[in-house]
Amino acid sequence: MPAPNEFDRLRVVLVAARNPLNIGAAARAMSNFGFLHLRVVNPYEAAFREARSAVGASALLASAEEYKTVAEAVADCTLVVGTTAVRHRELQHPLRRLEYGMRLIRKQLGSSRVALLFGSEKFGLSNAALSHCHWLMRIPTCEGNISMNLGQAVAVCLYELVRDAKAARQTEKVKRASAAELERITTTLLEAMRASGYLVRRPIADVDERVRRLVRRLDLRADDSTAWLGILRQIVWKLRLGKPPAG
Amino acid sequence: MPAPNEFDRLRVVLVAARNPLNIGAAARAMSNFGFLHLRVVNPYEAAFREARSAVGASALLASAEEYKTVAEAVADCTLVVGTTAVRHRELQHPLRRLEYGMRLIRKQLGSSRVALLFGSEKFGLSNAALSHCHWLMRIPTCEGNISMNLGQAVAVCLYELVRDAKAARQTEKVKRASAAELERITTTLLEAMRASGYLVRRPIADVDERVRRLVRRLDLRADDSTAWLGILRQIVWKLRLGKPPAG
Repeated sequence: MPAPNEFDRLRVVLVAARNPLNIGAAARAMSNFGFLHLRVVNPYEAAFREARSAVGASALLASAEEYKTVAEAVADCTLVVGTTAVRHRELQHPLRRLEYGMRLIRKQLGSSRVALLFGSEKFGLSNAALSHCHWLMRIPTCEGNISMNLGQAVAVCLYELVRDAKAARQTEKVKRASAAELERITTTLLEAMRASGYLVRRPIADVDERVRRLVRRLDLRADDSTAWLGILRQIVWKLRLGKPPAG
Repeated sequence: MPAPNEFDRLRVVLVAARNPLNIGAAARAMSNFGFLHLRVVNPYEAAFREARSAVGASALLASAEEYKTVAEAVADCTLVVGTTAVRHRELQHPLRRLEYGMRLIRKQLGSSRVALLFGSEKFGLSNAALSHCHWLMRIPTCEGNISMNLGQAVAVCLYELVRDAKAARQTEKVKRASAAELERITTTLLEAMRASGYLVRRPIADVDERVRRLVRRLDLRADDSTAWLGILRQIVWKLRLGKPPAG
């Protein structure tokens, strides 16, 4: 997970949130991704009260700070970023895609507090709230349905902040079967094919080479090759039962 | 947005979902990110009916396909991936981080269908459901609270699939003020400082150079520099009103 100090500097600010379920969902996503500081500006009082008193409401929600104005809620932050679904607002704010915006926010969090603003479910951030922002950010949704649910938008934004670009380039450390193991499976499979009569019904000219390639294409893991060999040996044993060993 | 053909091959599969709000939220996130094919396996009937009949329920939800078993729901897919919050399950499935897993899924979607499985809110995917998966994927949540809300988990997974790594490296195309524009602002600001008496109260030895640097540090956009120059000129005009022009 992220460097705790840096992520401790983020303030998630919900402006005029209306739905207690959404306030709760925002808090849950914050907790999932390791962000602890929630601020609410002018929430619908009943909604905020209900969210706080809900069963399973988090300590995070209990410690959420309440403000009357956006100005007060962001006063101690050096960067204020608004989220919006709209692409071409009349407002002349720079509008950045989430991938790029979060890179800038991550940089700023290295030294000082950043406020990330989310508007109400119905109207988004008002023009007055937006005017407190240095710039705006949008989640890359489809033209046909640009508007996200508040709790889901918070989750996606915070995920982008914690996601690890290096993790996408990881390589796997699963041990694959050795050539010797694969050859033992090949031999045993061939025995099973002979003992079962398969090769009598469907004779194959270059059967050894074909089966050898067939087994290689399985791309078996080391531990799985042991299991397969055991299964095949038992089958061969059963097939040969009572018959003289093949010459 | 993504290549439509590739993303048209994803099947989001909700297994034994219990909460109509979560089924609706999953459908909404799919619509936000351009995925159209939802499958539900053995949902709590009332929940599925309620989600479908909810106000604003999408066409996507109306066209969701219902299955009795996981086997049937994934039969036409060449890759089946389960999501889990658990990190160390007894099951010997490879467990990949979302960032890496989605890279593999994106590759597979280039040629064939992929099923992405989500379990019930309470229990996640059962061992039986997991056994249909080629491998598992986990969202990089915090140790302290690993379990995400279903709708939010769907949103985060689909976002990872559509996010554009190139967008994070974008450069901005905002036109900055030219040196000539900055120099005009510098000169006018100096005039305002003189006309207001600021320099009489606080004389500065190398004032021209200091103010020139002060203005450069603003990193002004071209259009903003025009606005600032207009404001400063008006201030200078007002300050000098009735006084003889400065020598």
